[in-house]
Amino acid sequence: MSSTTAGQVIKCRAAVAWEEGKPLAVEEVEVAPPEAGEVRLKILYTSLCHSDLYFWKSKGGRNLLFPRILGHEAAGIVESIGEGVTNLKPGDHVLPVFTGECGECRSCKSEESNLCEVLRLNTDTGVMLSDGKSRFSKDGKPIYHFLGTSTFSEYTVSHAKCVIKINPAAPLDKVCVLSCGICTGLGATLNVAKPKPGSTVAVFGLGAVGLAAAEGARLASASRIIGVDILSSRQEQAKSFGITDFVNPKDHDKPVQQVIVEMTDGGVDRALECTGHVEAAIAAFESVHDGWGVAVLVGLPSSEDEFKTKSINLLYERTVKGTFYGNYKPLSDIPSVVEKYMNKELELEKFITHSIPFSEINKSFDLMLKGESIRCLICMEG
Amino acid sequence: MSSTTAGQVIKCRAAVAWEEGKPLAVEEVEVAPPEAGEVRLKILYTSLCHSDLYFWKSKGGRNLLFPRILGHEAAGIVESIGEGVTNLKPGDHVLPVFTGECGECRSCKSEESNLCEVLRLNTDTGVMLSDGKSRFSKDGKPIYHFLGTSTFSEYTVSHAKCVIKINPAAPLDKVCVLSCGICTGLGATLNVAKPKPGSTVAVFGLGAVGLAAAEGARLASASRIIGVDILSSRQEQAKSFGITDFVNPKDHDKPVQQVIVEMTDGGVDRALECTGHVEAAIAAFESVHDGWGVAVLVGLPSSEDEFKTKSINLLYERTVKGTFYGNYKPLSDIPSVVEKYMNKELELEKFITHSIPFSEINKSFDLMLKGESIRCLICMEG
Ligand SMILES: NC(=O)c1ccc[n+]([C@@H]2O[C@H](COP(=O)([O-])OP(=O)(O)OC[C@H]3O[C@@H](n4cnc5c(N)ncnc54)[C@H](O)[C@@H]3O)[C@@H](O)[C@H]2O)c1
Ligand SMILES: NC(=O)c1ccc[n+]([C@@H]2O[C@H](COP(=O)([O-])OP(=O)(O)OC[C@H]3O[C@@H](n4cnc5c(N)ncnc54)[C@H](O)[C@@H]3O)[C@@H](O)[C@H]2O)c1
Ligand SMILES: [Zn+2]
Ligand SMILES: [Zn+2]
Ligand SMILES: [Zn+2]
Ligand SMILES: [Zn+2]
Repeated sequence: MSSTTAGQVIKCRAAVAWEEGKPLAVEEVEVAPPEAGEVRLKILYTSLCHSDLYFWKSKGGRNLLFPRILGHEAAGIVESIGEGVTNLKPGDHVLPVFTGECGECRSCKSEESNLCEVLRLNTDTGVMLSDGKSRFSKDGKPIYHFLGTSTFSEYTVSHAKCVIKINPAAPLDKVCVLSCGICTGLGATLNVAKPKPGSTVAVFGLGAVGLAAAEGARLASASRIIGVDILSSRQEQAKSFGITDFVNPKDHDKPVQQVIVEMTDGGVDRALECTGHVEAAIAAFESVHDGWGVAVLVGLPSSEDEFKTKSINLLYERTVKGTFYGNYKPLSDIPSVVEKYMNKELELEKFITHSIPFSEINKSFDLMLKGESIRCLICMEG
Repeated sequence: MSSTTAGQVIKCRAAVAWEEGKPLAVEEVEVAPPEAGEVRLKILYTSLCHSDLYFWKSKGGRNLLFPRILGHEAAGIVESIGEGVTNLKPGDHVLPVFTGECGECRSCKSEESNLCEVLRLNTDTGVMLSDGKSRFSKDGKPIYHFLGTSTFSEYTVSHAKCVIKINPAAPLDKVCVLSCGICTGLGATLNVAKPKPGSTVAVFGLGAVGLAAAEGARLASASRIIGVDILSSRQEQAKSFGITDFVNPKDHDKPVQQVIVEMTDGGVDRALECTGHVEAAIAAFESVHDGWGVAVLVGLPSSEDEFKTKSINLLYERTVKGTFYGNYKPLSDIPSVVEKYMNKELELEKFITHSIPFSEINKSFDLMLKGESIRCLICMEG
């Protein structure tokens, strides 16, 4: 993180996914300096989000790219910047993010969309935008990038407009989780579902994203927050996130949407789908009250999944919509979410249930697969 | 319409649907006086809406009720009122409507919903709410009501809170069409889709409902209004409704949604489904731009129809929602739509392409089935 490394290839440790679904291998890789419009970051903390698992397991049968360096939820410091970068300088405290904000395209200029036409989520390429090449290599052979972040590495290269400069006083071991999951869930509620005070809200899936959605409902003064998860162990954890009722679909003979409709005299005002399973998306939609109910889909479905429901359910004035990254524009909006944490409006500690050294990164996969962790912090120095 | 008939059974002409899909028979029926909370109306004008066809043809395989008196788009005058009716008096000029506004239920008290819990659309019963009986009969045998309106009769009985009192200066032969189709389409755009000035809007189905939706888009200053219909004859008609582009799906080898996405560099800002066909609903949804696109479903689907789309289409921040009656609360909101016509903000004449005497009512079915009419006015005196 000094001028001694700028412009040089850095050798450092990264957790390489050599094959689909196989444990990552922590080993030495080479990280090239940033090209024009790019920055190289020293990652200090990262954490596993379900979307990493999704691409690691190649869910949805996509043609995936291996070897690859996964990871997209992280916090770090700018090591060096490429030509023409003006929004960042070495030493800045930052959160890399899986989407970006070029500031110039139709979406960036629109108030309504955060899907930057240039830097939006691109899961199918594993190279940098400028030259179609990777900045990672091992023994001269390229290793693919992931979502423009690849934070399971001590150093990584990102597009400068995919990197959020934040308050340097913010503790990076906490705000790390704002870089994906927590902002996604929080924004899904606050920016998209927008429950009115006194509303009833159902949250499907009580991982970090779902619990952040519940936290958003609590901040929005919802009167009742129904958590739905197929793991009963989530019930205890969920209490400190304002969940007032817990439903495990497996405990019921009838469809979970029917259970919720009966519990709430016609349906909830808002529902959030945070599992990535299409049957949960359909159940979330069919749980909302007619006339005003809104279901927000957050989970990443498999590419072939079809959302389907009787047309008449829609006609009765129900709404369904999706969100990416909680509809936050990353560079413009996230610094103020960091400030919410700094002002103690938002608690992050309760999301971080585990902490492990980088050398043990595969443990975080086990913890998530077993549903034991909410977020497992991975400390790069270790 | 005088005190001489109040309290008496009225003998008058009605168009009775004796059997599914068979021509209506205009013949004499008996109309009992209104019970408590009801009013009896003298219908002066009525018009055929596609929803009448839907129930006449028993689309969707519902268990339908015959003999029945159809009709739900009409204008008339209050003949007499039942006990306890305070919102109407004999002589008031009115529009009966297929939904109501009790003013007391959770929906009526909510700003968000017009689906009155007491008086909402009920297609499956053919009797009055208060006593489960019909007010229509012939030779002592009951004839079923339809949607609480049954306007294909010189006199009909409705729940008082399903009848809108309007400005007595409004010409009933024009505002008749506000009682269903035009308000449905207009409100779908103005109250639900809410395009911003300069937006692109696609309208699927250019019958009265779709053209009213297009009219709403024009009033909202949309820059481009794409009309979609499988009848090319609709193209000429549509021009006076602000349609700037016309697409007939049958003229293209690729799906119509792809045609629209290509015409608009990524999709329209808003789409309105006004055909009642689920494939058009899906195409409308898949025609909207990611990030901000909203599809509004207006058409009445068959009861078994399933709306389905790849989950990922939703995730990219698209929205789909349904509407009834353009989300207008009938008693509260429609008088001001009548005023829009009186102030010449809204033109109704262009929707009324045909006019026939009541005795020829079956012609209006032919005209709609052939797609020749937008609205065919049926004059009860004739
Ligand atoms: N749209 C976005 O921008 C965005 C961003 C981040 C994450 N995501 C997605 O959000 C989802 C949640 O991520 P996470 O990190 O919180 O995952 P997680 O694995 O920590 O939590 C998911 C939870 O859902 C539960 N679950 C699974 N199937 C269920 C079902 N049918 N019904 C009820 N509960 C069920 C699991 O038991 C688990 O507790 C994932 O699909 C992820 O890919 C989307
Ligand atoms: N939601 C509500 O409150 C409400 C109220 C009134 C009417 N409706 C419904 O709205 C719809 C329209 O009513 P209308 O009276 O205007 O009907 P209409 O028959 O006059 O017009 C329908 C138009 O759609 C066209 N069409 C049919 N299939 C199509 C397809 N696949 N693609 C493109 N165009 C297609 C027809 O050619 C016709 O021009 C009907 O389904 C009716 O039941 C709903
Ligand atoms: Zn993530
Ligand atoms: Zn952009
Ligand atoms: Zn109608
Ligand atoms: Zn009501």
